[in-house]
Amino acid sequence: MPSYIAPVEDMMFLFEKLRDNKYYNELEKYKDVSPDLVKDILEEAAKINQNLILPLAKAGDENPAILENGVVRTPPGYKEVYQKYIEDGWTSLSCDPKYGGQGMPKTVSAFFDEMISSASLAFKLYSELTLGAYNCIHHHANDEIKNKFLPKMVEGKWSGTMCLTEPVCGTDLGLLKTKALEQPDGTYKITGQKIFITSGDHDLTENIIHLVIARASDSPKGTKGISLFLVPKFVVKEDGTIGARNGISTGSIETKMGIKGSATCVLNFDEAIGFMIGPKNKGLSQMFTMMNLERIVVGIQGLGISEIAYQNSLSYAKDRKQGKSNNKSENGSADSIIEHADIRKTLLNMKSIIEGERALCFWLSQQTEVSLNHNDQKIRQDASDMVSLMTPVVKSLFSDLGMEITSDAMQVFGGYGYTKDQGIEQLYRDNRITPIYEGTNSVQAADLVFRKLSNKNGNVINKFLNIIKSEANSNNEKLTPFVEQFNYYIDILSKFSEWSIEKAKTNKDDVSAAANDYLKTLGYVSLAFAWIKVLNISFKDYNENKKFYDNKINTAKFYFDKVLPRAEQHYKSAISGSSNIMNFKFN
Amino acid sequence: MPSYIAPVEDMMFLFEKLRDNKYYNELEKYKDVSPDLVKDILEEAAKINQNLILPLAKAGDENPAILENGVVRTPPGYKEVYQKYIEDGWTSLSCDPKYGGQGMPKTVSAFFDEMISSASLAFKLYSELTLGAYNCIHHHANDEIKNKFLPKMVEGKWSGTMCLTEPVCGTDLGLLKTKALEQPDGTYKITGQKIFITSGDHDLTENIIHLVIARASDSPKGTKGISLFLVPKFVVKEDGTIGARNGISTGSIETKMGIKGSATCVLNFDEAIGFMIGPKNKGLSQMFTMMNLERIVVGIQGLGISEIAYQNSLSYAKDRKQGKSNNKSENGSADSIIEHADIRKTLLNMKSIIEGERALCFWLSQQTEVSLNHNDQKIRQDASDMVSLMTPVVKSLFSDLGMEITSDAMQVFGGYGYTKDQGIEQLYRDNRITPIYEGTNSVQAADLVFRKLSNKNGNVINKFLNIIKSEANSNNEKLTPFVEQFNYYIDILSKFSEWSIEKAKTNKDDVSAAANDYLKTLGYVSLAFAWIKVLNISFKDYNENKKFYDNKINTAKFYFDKVLPRAEQHYKSAISGSSNIMNFKFN
Repeated sequence: MPSYIAPVEDMMFLFEKLRDNKYYNELEKYKDVSPDLVKDILEEAAKINQNLILPLAKAGDENPAILENGVVRTPPGYKEVYQKYIEDGWTSLSCDPKYGGQGMPKTVSAFFDEMISSASLAFKLYSELTLGAYNCIHHHANDEIKNKFLPKMVEGKWSGTMCLTEPVCGTDLGLLKTKALEQPDGTYKITGQKIFITSGDHDLTENIIHLVIARASDSPKGTKGISLFLVPKFVVKEDGTIGARNGISTGSIETKMGIKGSATCVLNFDEAIGFMIGPKNKGLSQMFTMMNLERIVVGIQGLGISEIAYQNSLSYAKDRKQGKSNNKSENGSADSIIEHADIRKTLLNMKSIIEGERALCFWLSQQTEVSLNHNDQKIRQDASDMVSLMTPVVKSLFSDLGMEITSDAMQVFGGYGYTKDQGIEQLYRDNRITPIYEGTNSVQAADLVFRKLSNKNGNVINKFLNIIKSEANSNNEKLTPFVEQFNYYIDILSKFSEWSIEKAKTNKDDVSAAANDYLKTLGYVSLAFAWIKVLNISFKDYNENKKFYDNKINTAKFYFDKVLPRAEQHYKSAISGSSNIMNFKFN
Repeated sequence: MPSYIAPVEDMMFLFEKLRDNKYYNELEKYKDVSPDLVKDILEEAAKINQNLILPLAKAGDENPAILENGVVRTPPGYKEVYQKYIEDGWTSLSCDPKYGGQGMPKTVSAFFDEMISSASLAFKLYSELTLGAYNCIHHHANDEIKNKFLPKMVEGKWSGTMCLTEPVCGTDLGLLKTKALEQPDGTYKITGQKIFITSGDHDLTENIIHLVIARASDSPKGTKGISLFLVPKFVVKEDGTIGARNGISTGSIETKMGIKGSATCVLNFDEAIGFMIGPKNKGLSQMFTMMNLERIVVGIQGLGISEIAYQNSLSYAKDRKQGKSNNKSENGSADSIIEHADIRKTLLNMKSIIEGERALCFWLSQQTEVSLNHNDQKIRQDASDMVSLMTPVVKSLFSDLGMEITSDAMQVFGGYGYTKDQGIEQLYRDNRITPIYEGTNSVQAADLVFRKLSNKNGNVINKFLNIIKSEANSNNEKLTPFVEQFNYYIDILSKFSEWSIEKAKTNKDDVSAAANDYLKTLGYVSLAFAWIKVLNISFKDYNENKKFYDNKINTAKFYFDKVLPRAEQHYKSAISGSSNIMNFKFN
């Protein structure tokens, strides 16, 4: 089983030193969230993740969730740990105190998301979708619904799901067939089949609150006729207690390559009682409120799994002796593989990506909080634009790099990485869902180039470019070599952005074919931006903690020398266009 | 279960049109291997792979090989198909007719290796190691041993293994502990533990012939004291019949991420009777005779799995309707995803890599045959240098790109790619062993830069550069745009090669840190070289088969525009050196 120590020191570094968004710092509601409080929270979080949740990863892989006589049973140990997990209030961390939440900002809860992704992604998913559903209800439902459902969800006694996908529609939700028939009392009867429903059924909670998109009988075809419904597994009575079973059954659960502890269900709705949330035919945009936050969390999942893969690769590399390194040490007949340049490079590649991702994510968490909570509408909108631009980047890049890092971890372990004993191959399998779910990475890339790059609020990418350029505008001469490299790639990103925006008007296929490349270029430059922020602090506060900052500076140097150059070939590859691709005759 | 149609047309194209190595064409022993004969062989090969072997993939994944009361049992169906497989003579395809083989060249047997890798890698491994052992015995053993063991191995009634790895030594075989104690009759008693032994035990054959490296009691430490021994599972009597069980037992078999039908064994040798093969203390170089051929076959495995992943992605993309493409078709409410530029790009990426790999491999097969069979020692040596240079490239690049292609296939399938139903995720898991076994890809890269790039025979890479430059020296003006791009990357490869050769003298760490990057650059340029060969034919013979050659030309164009640019960033990343990496202080 892999070991795991939560990276609290790095998280606290970010929380103390990189909390530099003045609009975030103006937010009244988080004035009391002090570094001391956050440190206490993170240390408690580390304990439950390291001690109780981590062992569930292997348990769930060896004993997947099963469907037995119509009931889904979670793997051994899940129930007991889930009980402790909700007793300690971890589901409620970022929720509204009005409904029993602890009201922590994303700058804190994102750290928790990372830790639990490291410990057990499959276990995490049971509460993650609850939070997604919570956010959606909190945003869009009326007070009656909120008061009835949110407290139990915040408490973790009830869980939530997002029911979007159907057999004929995943990416393209306009095709959906699930029907909602209005009843005289204003409720709806929901009928249809939903597939790939994470935590669609399980035995951890008393009730499951499904958020379902469906088409009312008098709604138009396509995406403009989709409404959102709250459909509980058990009907909830007036007094808030649980009533009769609703018309929802679990048809089957998927047998998957990884995250086997998580139940991925086919749900059959048969005249199930549902409540419309928000206005009719606006279901898709309401659901996307929730999806955007979810997508960032998927990126954080990739980061979390990368972190545990790195930690275990590092300790194995120190331990495993094999071959003589080039630096002529005289340690008997073989050196630890960490002495070999190639292995060191692999480890630094992981580390430079992981710490860059964590810093970028922290910057984004501040933007998210500003976008949700600032008093000034203009400031909210600007922050929201950044969140919207970065959402597909964080989702896709972090999940893809999670595959690179877990794969490299297997290579460090050699044959032992491919066997089940060490648990490394499980990290690789578990992470492999992250480039797929919540919209495949190609869907994210299309979203980025066609909707996010420029939108009704103007040229969003130029706002971002201005932000990152101003960050690099330092008069610390130690930063100069980094800034020079950075500017070279900012220039490529600028050109690639202009090319994409122009082509989107004249040749959409060129942009569609280039979308994944564009996302990668933007992503690698964004990670460099995060590293520039870290470098600014590292040089400024160098004398406070030389060892820590030396480590940061050298890791950043690796990123700029070895990783950032990837950004360029994506540009070169992309601008050759798509006519050959579109005209190609496949056999 | 994935479907599979062997790409016989493309293989025959290579065999008929790209068989351009004049030294290969001079080889007397293959004069009778006509295109008609090869076509017959490939069509028969297609049948057994498509009809009988393909279903074993799923069977083996669902019912892995197991160890039961000390005996390894292969998955259901393996025995029956193996029986048919050897009856039809597939194990003997490339073997010496003197021992019952069919004497086919690698230009043919490599196609068979590809097909069976597409159909079921796990099943393939039971006969693959037999061929490895056959090659090693054929090269190094005396006639008595050859006459006793080879006919049964060629027939497939006995199988073979390569026993190298031990718990403390994988890459670094100098550390091995297995002992060989000489007996008065000239035989040896072998004692020790070997791990990760593919097909180490199973129920498909009457006997298993282990090739074991061990240290004789009077041999020196390190790699210079390793000898090679033939150790049969059952002792073979004078008359060639099977006698008593030898002192070998199966300690356990590995539970692995993929290739579950293949038994990966821990073998305990306890005073097992063995016969020394070849001269004492030369075991490692003898074993490597076999390893080099094996490594190319691992590359071909990656190619085979890529091919089946491509075929299934293509047919799913034609079938699955989702979203509107940009070309404004009016096919009802959604288009097949193959209409989307991004999906088309993914498919062409696969296709351009696969067909380039197949062509490169065909070129290499000719070189291999020349290196083994030409009368002129100088010509043999030149060919051998090319084989030696390309071995790590084919092994590593094809296995890595196999991961890219199987991963992209999962993305095309979306959520359905992650579940077990479609068999796509199995291709991804099965292929994941290929970057690890027969020496991890980093070991291959180190072998390339430290041993292959320049060796006692001079500057091998320059010989290769001259070959590829002369290929591009065409006066067909249609080739010109390709040649221009090609020359740009040849120039990068030249500079990177010079840098590596120079640095190897002064700063080995720089080269070690750059090794994987160098391998990639050389690999992408080599695939471009293979495409230039294909393009030369395509333009020359265009009117013979316009549809086929148009397809080739457009696929090549994709490769040059979209894939080849990857070669450059590896160079940029590498030449920043390794001092930061070597000085880094890991926590």
